[in-house]
Amino acid sequence: MIQCVAIIGLGLLGGSVGLALQESLPQVATTGYDADPSVREQAAERGLVGTVCASAAEAVKHADLVILCVPVGAMEAAAREMAHALPQHAIVSDVGSSKATVGEALGRALPDHLVIPAHPVAGTERSGPDAGFASLFRNRWCILTPAPDAPEQAVADVSALWESLGATVEIMDPVHHDRVLAVTSHLPHLIAYTIVGTASDLEEVTRGEVIKYSAGGFRDFTRIAASDPTMWRDVFLANREAVLEMLGRFTEDLTALQRAIRNSDGDTLFDLFTRTRAIRRSIVEQGQDDERADFGRSDHAIDNRD
Amino acid sequence: MIQCVAIIGLGLLGGSVGLALQESLPQVATTGYDADPSVREQAAERGLVGTVCASAAEAVKHADLVILCVPVGAMEAAAREMAHALPQHAIVSDVGSSKATVGEALGRALPDHLVIPAHPVAGTERSGPDAGFASLFRNRWCILTPAPDAPEQAVADVSALWESLGATVEIMDPVHHDRVLAVTSHLPHLIAYTIVGTASDLEEVTRGEVIKYSAGGFRDFTRIAASDPTMWRDVFLANREAVLEMLGRFTEDLTALQRAIRNSDGDTLFDLFTRTRAIRRSIVEQGQDDERADFGRSDHAIDNRD
Repeated sequence: MIQCVAIIGLGLLGGSVGLALQESLPQVATTGYDADPSVREQAAERGLVGTVCASAAEAVKHADLVILCVPVGAMEAAAREMAHALPQHAIVSDVGSSKATVGEALGRALPDHLVIPAHPVAGTERSGPDAGFASLFRNRWCILTPAPDAPEQAVADVSALWESLGATVEIMDPVHHDRVLAVTSHLPHLIAYTIVGTASDLEEVTRGEVIKYSAGGFRDFTRIAASDPTMWRDVFLANREAVLEMLGRFTEDLTALQRAIRNSDGDTLFDLFTRTRAIRRSIVEQGQDDERADFGRSDHAIDNRD
Repeated sequence: MIQCVAIIGLGLLGGSVGLALQESLPQVATTGYDADPSVREQAAERGLVGTVCASAAEAVKHADLVILCVPVGAMEAAAREMAHALPQHAIVSDVGSSKATVGEALGRALPDHLVIPAHPVAGTERSGPDAGFASLFRNRWCILTPAPDAPEQAVADVSALWESLGATVEIMDPVHHDRVLAVTSHLPHLIAYTIVGTASDLEEVTRGEVIKYSAGGFRDFTRIAASDPTMWRDVFLANREAVLEMLGRFTEDLTALQRAIRNSDGDTLFDLFTRTRAIRRSIVEQGQDDERADFGRSDHAIDNRD
């Protein structure tokens, strides 16, 4: 049974896990650590975990489960830093957005511990210890990528914990996970970052105009292009092969559409634009998005939490 | 003074203009026409305009202002259809998303009338007579692209009307408009349509998986890729040059990022990802988007208005 959870990294994800655990499983003790002293201070102020510790070793010393919530490029170092203090029976998990290379890195750093990598498919464009909230994982998927020989009970315990936070758990092969997420998350972020960069470098159109008229579609891209730079740099480097593969497909398709526009081939455009509607409908039906016009954005005041 | 407005085309935009006019300027009479009989029927049921007419000629015969709310590729035909019934003093405007070619087409079709092209930068991914709502233009920009010699009073009258509906009016050169919108609206739509198409054609990742894990970023693209296919086909054909120009810039930038990923050049990635955050902040500050985490989507039930 998991009675004490240590969270390493107290940003959006780590903070949300801490808040959600305290809300949903108040009997579970939570400890936490972040390498940045100012983050630890804010985490203590907001009560993101029961106890904010001054070192990773102190945070994990009584843990039954450690959840690493640091950028994927920092996972191995974070694991090594706590290794000497980690109880033998403790399970190590994480929330990283790419799984194959992260799983390997954790295995290297902690050869004598059970590692059950996890990826809750949830997030916002905000980051840091003030960004987390307890309901982040509600109605979202959490993908676990345990080794085929991982003990069933441990996988069940980690699954049950995520389900307590409102997520639905899926078990997946890490390489397949990385391909799926390359298309549903990594490629969209890469494209959003690119177009926002392109728009801000134009000479004929000013940055002020881009911002002013962003409601025509551009603003939807800026949201995900405001995501944490360190996290995303690491994701693209960690999941390089799958991202490059999906990017290749995308580029081919974009070239075909470019040709259709150049040739005034309206039928090709119309056919694609009709097909893409069906996918949207399925996403709304499955509760992964809200179909209210404008997401109700125009009706609400802006909540400036920063 | 504008006392009677005729709306040709009663989909999302036409319907919203009708509803907004009735709410904000109840003293102004509204008539409307749509080429599709079933749309006329739904428009009458929802009361999108004061009087739904059986022909374009009947709708415009007492109009001081006609607003064409049809796809940009259908503007010229719609203008010709009503030309014989149009009062001499009536101003003709539209809501098309591209302005240079549309302005030329309307000038050809109505050589003896004053044309003041307009583009309210507002919309949702929904379409048809059930999609409109009165507040669509509130806190949004409406760009007018009158000829340099257009009578000031007429431009002021059309501006005042849009301001009554809650929009802020800008006057712009049509060619510049088309460049600005190519980057803030047309290119984002093209890219969103492409990636949604790419994702649905993969063999290694099923469509079910794409839908299931869409909350990682992909769903933001599906929203705009669900926009009306006819409208968007026409926009890309009408604004071809500017769209191809912006697409060329985007493709160059994407190639540079691809190279950075291939070479594990994390600094290039990090620098871009840091720059793009600032633009998002400006958009939120200017009220063109809502920064609440997830737009509050996860907290709300889905409002199935269809």
